[in-house]
Amino acid sequence: ISNLRSKVSKFARRVWKIGADDPRKVIHCMKVGLALALVSVFYYTRPLYEGVGGTAMWAVMTVVVVFEFTVGGSLYKGLNRATATLCAGALAFGIHWLAIKSGKTTDHIILGASVFVLSSVATFSRFIPAIKTRFDYGITIFILTFNLVAVSGYRVEQLLTLVQWRFCTITIGISICLTVCVVIRPVWAGEELHNLIICNLERLAESIAETVAECLKEEGSTTAECKQKSTSKVQGYKGVLNSKASEDSLANLARWEPSHGRFSFQHPWRQYLKIGAAMRHCAYCIESLNSCISMENQQPPDSVKNHLAVFYTKLSSECSKVLKEIANSFRSMKRSSSVDYLVEEMKNTAEELQTALSSLPQEATAVIMETLPLITVASLLIEISQRVEGVVD
Amino acid sequence: ISNLRSKVSKFARRVWKIGADDPRKVIHCMKVGLALALVSVFYYTRPLYEGVGGTAMWAVMTVVVVFEFTVGGSLYKGLNRATATLCAGALAFGIHWLAIKSGKTTDHIILGASVFVLSSVATFSRFIPAIKTRFDYGITIFILTFNLVAVSGYRVEQLLTLVQWRFCTITIGISICLTVCVVIRPVWAGEELHNLIICNLERLAESIAETVAECLKEEGSTTAECKQKSTSKVQGYKGVLNSKASEDSLANLARWEPSHGRFSFQHPWRQYLKIGAAMRHCAYCIESLNSCISMENQQPPDSVKNHLAVFYTKLSSECSKVLKEIANSFRSMKRSSSVDYLVEEMKNTAEELQTALSSLPQEATAVIMETLPLITVASLLIEISQRVEGVVD
Repeated sequence: ISNLRSKVSKFARRVWKIGADDPRKVIHCMKVGLALALVSVFYYTRPLYEGVGGTAMWAVMTVVVVFEFTVGGSLYKGLNRATATLCAGALAFGIHWLAIKSGKTTDHIILGASVFVLSSVATFSRFIPAIKTRFDYGITIFILTFNLVAVSGYRVEQLLTLVQWRFCTITIGISICLTVCVVIRPVWAGEELHNLIICNLERLAESIAETVAECLKEEGSTTAECKQKSTSKVQGYKGVLNSKASEDSLANLARWEPSHGRFSFQHPWRQYLKIGAAMRHCAYCIESLNSCISMENQQPPDSVKNHLAVFYTKLSSECSKVLKEIANSFRSMKRSSSVDYLVEEMKNTAEELQTALSSLPQEATAVIMETLPLITVASLLIEISQRVEGVVD
Repeated sequence: ISNLRSKVSKFARRVWKIGADDPRKVIHCMKVGLALALVSVFYYTRPLYEGVGGTAMWAVMTVVVVFEFTVGGSLYKGLNRATATLCAGALAFGIHWLAIKSGKTTDHIILGASVFVLSSVATFSRFIPAIKTRFDYGITIFILTFNLVAVSGYRVEQLLTLVQWRFCTITIGISICLTVCVVIRPVWAGEELHNLIICNLERLAESIAETVAECLKEEGSTTAECKQKSTSKVQGYKGVLNSKASEDSLANLARWEPSHGRFSFQHPWRQYLKIGAAMRHCAYCIESLNSCISMENQQPPDSVKNHLAVFYTKLSSECSKVLKEIANSFRSMKRSSSVDYLVEEMKNTAEELQTALSSLPQEATAVIMETLPLITVASLLIEISQRVEGVVD
């Protein structure tokens, strides 16, 4: 039992941590609860009940399905849902009308065939990447509504009313959803993306500086605690490596958002993805550098180490300065004037390092394995930071 | 107009290519159409209609939402949907019963509060990673069903019947779905994952061999066509870099699949993810190697090149042999006996290369920048292929 209890308490602590790390998640949950409670109130009110009738459940369903963590997500789903319902309803109504006109036996065939063909075509269109990223949810709803109307229309005579009510309740659901989502502590996908990029830039900057420091540090000179701290900083680049998926999805959702705060409607979100790719490119290098360092079993002679250490430290600190400056210019949304200057300085240091390498003492060739990746990373960094700089707004 | 026409034909060609590249996608679309047509037939049949009543739409809805490309996806959604509906229905029924018992005014409060609290808690649980990967869809359905029953229960007196019918129609929908999905040309997520890993191993193997060949090749000695072909092979590693997301989702879905073909129910899918991570680790190195090669503006002296070329070619071909052998052993699902031997050989070659580096002529230090990353990659590769080898079934 004590084993079980410790497990439960461990789980509870982890859950608590999720909430404490990002209170917006807790607020989001309350918002969902609130939106659903609002819909219920709506349902309980008698006069409305008479009007909206049994289809009020569509409003509940819409709120449950459409409400997302970010405003962009809710907008994407809401707009897709409304448009798809309207299109599919109209189309199904047309086909149904055609089927009824054509007589008793053919109507079965027309309806069945249209269900088969349209569902297949719509499903196929989900495999087209350009459509998938923007309208995936819409197509699901299109298939759903079309089938519901086409099939149920056969029974219920008041087809038009059904489509109308469905659209109406869905609209109500979406408006409740969006109102709650935007009014109470909105979470904008665009802002999330912006912050993610800034955070990744800073992680990368720290990672570079720490990796090099780690590499030059003398063994045994640090306490375990201090080591752990720096290791966590070094690992920062791993987050950058794995952030592609979240960047992509955030950029997709950000596209749907209206202008908010410092971001306009057609903010160049694609540029963020490019910067993300450049950062990942950079992180790959840090990854290889890191594995080189952790592999070194042969201790390089101190003479070589000292010969290069100065340049290493200088270059890495300049790289991380450039990245931090870019992060700052992102934060203020202004093109920083000092980036060019810093990049220039970084280039010079890289050249100095190259010269220093050519003038290495003979014994150094033995340890080259350990020292070389660093300069590779350095030169790559120059290229990358230039690219990053080029795409800042 | 001709501009528009060319655009349309271009789009059509691209769509056609998607279908031609993977005919299973086309088959999938037909399967969706078929499943929906089956549900419609179900609906048209009068005796069933009397029984299932207006809730038949749940069957349509279930098919639309549950039908996924892979069997694992359909199973995941189907099981989640059924379980969640049952749980939420029972819970909502209980709370509703409690509310009715407690009198006229308090029942509003009890129902409203329970909607708010349960929705919030359920939404929060979606943020817990362990729950999100397995039950994300189930929780959505739980919230949905609970709200529908709790809210509609206030009106409709036959609550129990409602829950029963809803569960019944959903089960019918799921059975139609799964039958069509499994019987007609099933696409197993597990098999997809298996093939993806094999394909990535081969891509990596080709990529390594081609990159080194590219690096050693003399300028101008190849035709443009030949160059393009080898470039596409070199780029193979990029696919490996970006396949993390699809690997993760496939492994998640594969977990739900029963035993099929050569895969048992509890096939160690986690191992596949580990191998995937090891491959990505390897691809990072190739990425840095590649950028080193493309950057070289200084031409290394031929003496150095010749001194090392033999080892480069040997090592890279041995690396790619190991990877190909692993791919083969995956394909046959048997532990290959020759992997150990090949790895041993690769290690020896790497050592030879190291010796060759130490005995480099003095002039070589100037070009070290270009030559060194390769040995880094080589030694990394040893480590990685050992790891990969360790996890082969």
